[in-house]
Amino acid sequence: MPQHFDDRPIGVFDSGVGGLTVLAELRRRLPAEPTLYLGDNARAPYGPRPADEVLRFTLEAADLLLAQDVKLLVIACNTATARALDEVRRRSSVPVIGVIRPGALAAAAATRTRNVGVIATAGTVESGAYHEAIVEADAATQVAQLACPELVPMVEAGILDGRRAESVLRAYLEPMLAADPDIDTLLLGCTHYPLLRAPIERIVGDGVAVVDSAFTTALAVEDLLDALGARASGVEADAMHRVATTGDVAAFVSVAERLFGERLPAVEAVEIEPMPALPLD
Amino acid sequence: MPQHFDDRPIGVFDSGVGGLTVLAELRRRLPAEPTLYLGDNARAPYGPRPADEVLRFTLEAADLLLAQDVKLLVIACNTATARALDEVRRRSSVPVIGVIRPGALAAAAATRTRNVGVIATAGTVESGAYHEAIVEADAATQVAQLACPELVPMVEAGILDGRRAESVLRAYLEPMLAADPDIDTLLLGCTHYPLLRAPIERIVGDGVAVVDSAFTTALAVEDLLDALGARASGVEADAMHRVATTGDVAAFVSVAERLFGERLPAVEAVEIEPMPALPLD
Repeated sequence: MPQHFDDRPIGVFDSGVGGLTVLAELRRRLPAEPTLYLGDNARAPYGPRPADEVLRFTLEAADLLLAQDVKLLVIACNTATARALDEVRRRSSVPVIGVIRPGALAAAAATRTRNVGVIATAGTVESGAYHEAIVEADAATQVAQLACPELVPMVEAGILDGRRAESVLRAYLEPMLAADPDIDTLLLGCTHYPLLRAPIERIVGDGVAVVDSAFTTALAVEDLLDALGARASGVEADAMHRVATTGDVAAFVSVAERLFGERLPAVEAVEIEPMPALPLD
Repeated sequence: MPQHFDDRPIGVFDSGVGGLTVLAELRRRLPAEPTLYLGDNARAPYGPRPADEVLRFTLEAADLLLAQDVKLLVIACNTATARALDEVRRRSSVPVIGVIRPGALAAAAATRTRNVGVIATAGTVESGAYHEAIVEADAATQVAQLACPELVPMVEAGILDGRRAESVLRAYLEPMLAADPDIDTLLLGCTHYPLLRAPIERIVGDGVAVVDSAFTTALAVEDLLDALGARASGVEADAMHRVATTGDVAAFVSVAERLFGERLPAVEAVEIEPMPALPLD
């Protein structure tokens, strides 16, 4: 594999706009890499959906990105990673990275008290995937998980800080930390949450390290490209970026621009081919 | 790449016996994976050697392992990683992982004060590779490096704890921590040093997290195999392990058994083919 460059894009998938936090970190750390982002907004959010539906939707989205000749696939959605990463890997012709393991390893490295709090969507919490990944890295670590269903809608409404955001966040975080005063590390287990990092850090205070899976996933992608010798040959100015959504383009742009400013390329509309039947054994 | 298993061995290279700490972590975390370890004991230690010699020796050793059809190459030697990782990657037909980046990322995640101490061999310190890798992960982190030339010979002599080990370690660590009281994370930047972990942890105390690149590198290998879909198909009992040295077999076994107990397979003698000329541009 190594010994050469690879100018194919990195494929990034999320159920909606949250994975753009991962895309933003990737573009910041790896400016020469072309990227292709797919948001399945027509069927978002995945968080409340049943596990088998999340699996099927994620496989369909992965097929679409693989058909675009990506060199690497990032499942930039915690729910999809929890429910579908193993199966996507089994079917993929290219390496696949999820967002759970990089965040879990960073949290396990960050805690001194071996007490980690995880906030995530209901689906991610229910999957137990963060608990499992953190304990796999360090069996002695205690993991307290909390589902925060109000946060994704709040972020998508553009409420990222201020009195309203702080009050919603306090209602989740203060009881969690009061119940578990040994928690010294908080893992943001949803790709929307890094946009709330500033108020979260204020609320939890200096004694609690905030670990963000968008940042840690970008580091993992960098490591993988280096291990494979598969970085793009180009320079920053050449990198091609494409963003596509299965949902309404104007709505996607409106949310994405509110969250990420003007850095988005033109957003394309795509349709995902539904699978005739779930081809699992 | 993914979609299948890969039963070829993981190749692990070190200048001597230190990389066996990485091998031990790999075997503990990935018991189904066959391994092939090469210690270049005839030319160890690499730490004090000039950079171009370390580069040449490492390329020669990598060629030997690649000729054995390994699926992945781990440079389990900090000095060799610092001096030769990029060039090994350029020439390798399989993915290559070094020990510096995984340790650096874990240290950057572990520090709260953003002050990391690194202890390593003179060659690794001089290369600046840990400093660079930690700052790349978090530009705001301060890195204090200290060369500890007495530690490798001490470990190889089987002195892993007790009054003598503690006194040598105190002479290095206490002045470092006194000069930099904000250091809250100590990175063991040499694959021998995890064997000194117990006395090191006693000396630095609870306020300083000890990060060990053998452990973090094993996690990185696990991630890479998963991303590639390249885990071995077998079960623990089937995994083949081979250990080879360019040096004296009896001497290798004597040191390795003192450090690692009876878990070693029979040790083979190999010769490394010297390169006619350094094929770099």
